[in-house]
Amino acid sequence: MFAECPEAPDTPFLLIDKSKYLRNIERLYSRVAALGSNVRPHLKTLRSTDAARYLLRDARSPATISTLAEAEAFAAAGYSNLLYAVGIAPHKLPRVARLMQQGVEMHILLDSEQQALAVAEYGQQNGVAFSVFIEIDCDGHRGGIPPHSEALPELARIIEDGGSRLTGLLAHAGESYQCRTDDEIRAAAKAECGAIRIAGYRLRALGFACPILSVGATPTAHFAEDLTDITEVRAGVFTTFDLVMKNIGVCRIEDIAISVVSTVIGHNRDKGWVFIDAGWMALSRDRGTANQSQDYGYGMVCSPNGDPLEGLIINTTNQEHGIIELTQQASFTVDDFPVGSRVRILPNHACATAAMHQHYHVVDESGSAPEIWPRIMGW
Amino acid sequence: MFAECPEAPDTPFLLIDKSKYLRNIERLYSRVAALGSNVRPHLKTLRSTDAARYLLRDARSPATISTLAEAEAFAAAGYSNLLYAVGIAPHKLPRVARLMQQGVEMHILLDSEQQALAVAEYGQQNGVAFSVFIEIDCDGHRGGIPPHSEALPELARIIEDGGSRLTGLLAHAGESYQCRTDDEIRAAAKAECGAIRIAGYRLRALGFACPILSVGATPTAHFAEDLTDITEVRAGVFTTFDLVMKNIGVCRIEDIAISVVSTVIGHNRDKGWVFIDAGWMALSRDRGTANQSQDYGYGMVCSPNGDPLEGLIINTTNQEHGIIELTQQASFTVDDFPVGSRVRILPNHACATAAMHQHYHVVDESGSAPEIWPRIMGW
Repeated sequence: MFAECPEAPDTPFLLIDKSKYLRNIERLYSRVAALGSNVRPHLKTLRSTDAARYLLRDARSPATISTLAEAEAFAAAGYSNLLYAVGIAPHKLPRVARLMQQGVEMHILLDSEQQALAVAEYGQQNGVAFSVFIEIDCDGHRGGIPPHSEALPELARIIEDGGSRLTGLLAHAGESYQCRTDDEIRAAAKAECGAIRIAGYRLRALGFACPILSVGATPTAHFAEDLTDITEVRAGVFTTFDLVMKNIGVCRIEDIAISVVSTVIGHNRDKGWVFIDAGWMALSRDRGTANQSQDYGYGMVCSPNGDPLEGLIINTTNQEHGIIELTQQASFTVDDFPVGSRVRILPNHACATAAMHQHYHVVDESGSAPEIWPRIMGW
Repeated sequence: MFAECPEAPDTPFLLIDKSKYLRNIERLYSRVAALGSNVRPHLKTLRSTDAARYLLRDARSPATISTLAEAEAFAAAGYSNLLYAVGIAPHKLPRVARLMQQGVEMHILLDSEQQALAVAEYGQQNGVAFSVFIEIDCDGHRGGIPPHSEALPELARIIEDGGSRLTGLLAHAGESYQCRTDDEIRAAAKAECGAIRIAGYRLRALGFACPILSVGATPTAHFAEDLTDITEVRAGVFTTFDLVMKNIGVCRIEDIAISVVSTVIGHNRDKGWVFIDAGWMALSRDRGTANQSQDYGYGMVCSPNGDPLEGLIINTTNQEHGIIELTQQASFTVDDFPVGSRVRILPNHACATAAMHQHYHVVDESGSAPEIWPRIMGW
């Protein structure tokens, strides 16, 4: 396809395989539905309203976002149920309040008395009733309070006494990215759900409605076996997957729906190097597979059709240069990659690679004209 | 300053200290002038026409760029002497030709017969006389041909027989980033200049005018002692510097003109962690100091005024979270960083961190209103 239009799109560019993208969505959505829960997709991977259309059935479908820039852009596109899943900084409350005034159901996240007091103070001074989630720590990964914490009812009280609403609890099993077996992921999912149930039952016993119990990380979402009382499951990178997820065992190489298309621009024949025009600016600096079972360097090199080429490794990237090394395992020589030929690179970490691009080229199996999906930029 | 305007700019954002930026420029420009040469600045670090105003005296001042997107944007801003210092892919020649038709003096780079033949063919078929640089390998870092290579006069002949012009030779001492002492950098600079002189004298003896001999990398540019016959010196990151350059010994911490301003959004008191709203999306995934004499994690944590805070290290970043760890060496507790307070992070690698931002906030010592410098995005 791209051989026929060598100029447009110019390389490097980010390619989304829409057929795989839709299959990945269907896989998780049907899985979670069969377990009696719902998906609140995290939109941070592609940050695209075009991409979100296939994740959100209607304007009020629940979604997760990681910046207020996303909130503002998705709100402008008509989506109105947005969980900002990063601990709230008090100075960001006016931006949240503005979105609420526009009719957006915004949910904010906190895990400390400082934040809860700031929300209460701003809410009372400005007549705003925020919708608040408390973060529960299920695995020591990052933030949140433990489910048995004495601080939990304290926070709930500060929130509701301040005129805001405790809408839910949120846990994220970030440590599940370190899992090495399916059983480990199942255990992480069980712990994630277990923590949020304990916290939720405690608060409900104290009279807080706290209607939403939210869990999620892409690994646990694909391995949870019991979602009893879990209102919703959050996951982000599952739409495209990547090599980190392949290594964890959540997807296969052939499920990865994202790649960077690049052109060969030179060689170092003595060293067996092929230079391409995708450096870290197009691939990102993410080396997420470095400490996993298989290290893919800066990504897996594939043919223009997406077939993996064994024995090729991108060990070095500069800003606009990638260096593909042909190892002993390669059944190719540098002459198999003449100047002007193209390769596709599957990324270590889809979120990081997508972040380097301002738009994506989207193709599907039907062979219809590519779509362009712009990315929401900034904060 | 930012305490007075807690909402604008919202965090995270990239801050440029213009006073330091101008001093860094003056330092290199006066150094190179004293050695009888000129600077052809590489504009890839900030990719900003506003930033370029202080580097380019007039519209015809020589500049280096790393993408054709930069070429098009700098041309639109009136700059007309642009060296695209990445090996040319044949399919990009039409974009180059279009810029030439607009009056831009574009220079392209190549190091292979395949590229030279493609340039000759396109040039003859379309009546375009390109201005071409040949890349000379001075240290085995990446591309280029050795200065004694038999291919050198061959390439020159293909270029000029094809109706294009061999404008110059280019060497880049990329291995100087691995230097550990000043003497090693001086030796790298000597080798860089030596390689390009050998190649240039050879071609001139054969009757090629080859008027430009171009060398450069930020370390060698600051340590070269003899620039005899060197027409121009290229350097990019010297305008802002960064922690990698500090470790190499090219600048001091206090010369670093770039930082990311971030807000504290939470704590994990048991672990001595402070969470900030700058993750890898704002800082980049670049870990360029990981294998240097001092590893700065994801950047050096400073006070809002830019004073380094010893004993704090960002060992972990997620997309929109940074985790600052307070080590035994820290003379602070997490309570010294309340929710809502701000820190500044000096980056490992200025090019990679700037790449994550769509614009920069620029302040100077005078205390005048900040400027906003937009970044040129994409390819």
